[in-house]
Amino acid sequence: MPFNKIHVPATVPATLCRAINHELHESLVETCGVNPHDNFCLISRYAPDDMMFHPDFLGPRDPAGTIVIEIALLSGRSDEQKEALYKDIRRRLRGIGFEPNNSIIFLIENRPIDWSFSEAGSVKSVLGL
Amino acid sequence: MPFNKIHVPATVPATLCRAINHELHESLVETCGVNPHDNFCLISRYAPDDMMFHPDFLGPRDPAGTIVIEIALLSGRSDEQKEALYKDIRRRLRGIGFEPNNSIIFLIENRPIDWSFSEAGSVKSVLGL
Amino acid sequence: MPFNKIHVPATVPATLCRAINHELHESLVETCGVNPHDNFCLISRYAPDDMMFHPDFLGPRDPAGTIVIEIALLSGRSDEQKEALYKDIRRRLRGIGFEPNNSIIFLIENRPIDWSFSEAGSVKSVLGL
Repeated sequence: MPFNKIHVPATVPATLCRAINHELHESLVETCGVNPHDNFCLISRYAPDDMMFHPDFLGPRDPAGTIVIEIALLSGRSDEQKEALYKDIRRRLRGIGFEPNNSIIFLIENRPIDWSFSEAGSVKSVLGL
Repeated sequence: MPFNKIHVPATVPATLCRAINHELHESLVETCGVNPHDNFCLISRYAPDDMMFHPDFLGPRDPAGTIVIEIALLSGRSDEQKEALYKDIRRRLRGIGFEPNNSIIFLIENRPIDWSFSEAGSVKSVLGL
Repeated sequence: MPFNKIHVPATVPATLCRAINHELHESLVETCGVNPHDNFCLISRYAPDDMMFHPDFLGPRDPAGTIVIEIALLSGRSDEQKEALYKDIRRRLRGIGFEPNNSIIFLIENRPIDWSFSEAGSVKSVLGL
């Protein structure tokens, strides 16, 4: 139950967005034990004026080329898993030619009762969590 | 204090979005004791390439026709209320001709101090919660 | 680590959006001890049909002219700080000619391990929080 929202400049091609989510998902699987099928993402696009990012708070970035990776995440991942996720996502971003420092990542957590993917009910009841 | 965000394919007509939120709101009132006036919603629209949903993780869905219902919710609802909400929303979606399995629902909770609707201050102070 | 999302009618000019975020950021610095460089914001724009707000629940508002200020916030601010934030933001909105009651504010909290701004890792590890 990660649900990925990736906020990008409107000019980022769909193919790159898809590649970014692919790497993000692979990284979640590898570092956080996410089910390989648990892959859900929305891409939100913004005009240049609608993204306002400080250029060097907690790391240098190009504000005009920065993406924001926001993950609604089922709680339970350890601090070590989250650190590994941040490191691995950025390694993968570099691997597809995207400057890793032009990415801001944040997580918002909830619980199994807070998710429902079908008429079968909540993730808590479906998976017995 | 639910605040509804409904993420939809850009082609979903405004009338259907309005109907979906109407049913969602009625369901929140009925299953979670939400005040009938506490009705707030944003509809976010996406191009096909910008929605990426697995076709059958935790239930079958048509990725091209799936909506995401994200609710920022004042904490305090029981697991039973949440299960009732998921069931009731989907029954209502079917009632307006929308395939219920083409909906993903998730909740993000906060507290009375985390909401403010007017110059009177937070919901905590206004409602004495 | 506030991350500001401001949801606005599509017709709100970019200059006003920028002014609103400027005031919001100044208010966060003043009332919540936010670092003056910790300034990050996304503006999301909506067609009239895609914003549905009750006209007078917990305060009067013009639904067609209402904005929503959603802040992902590092936890740890006191209730008093949050009340001061709500009051100060609205005072500032009035100061730039924006009707303060046409604003809904809500906060979603997380922890230092839930943020990462660069290859250096999480805010927890970078700032030793």
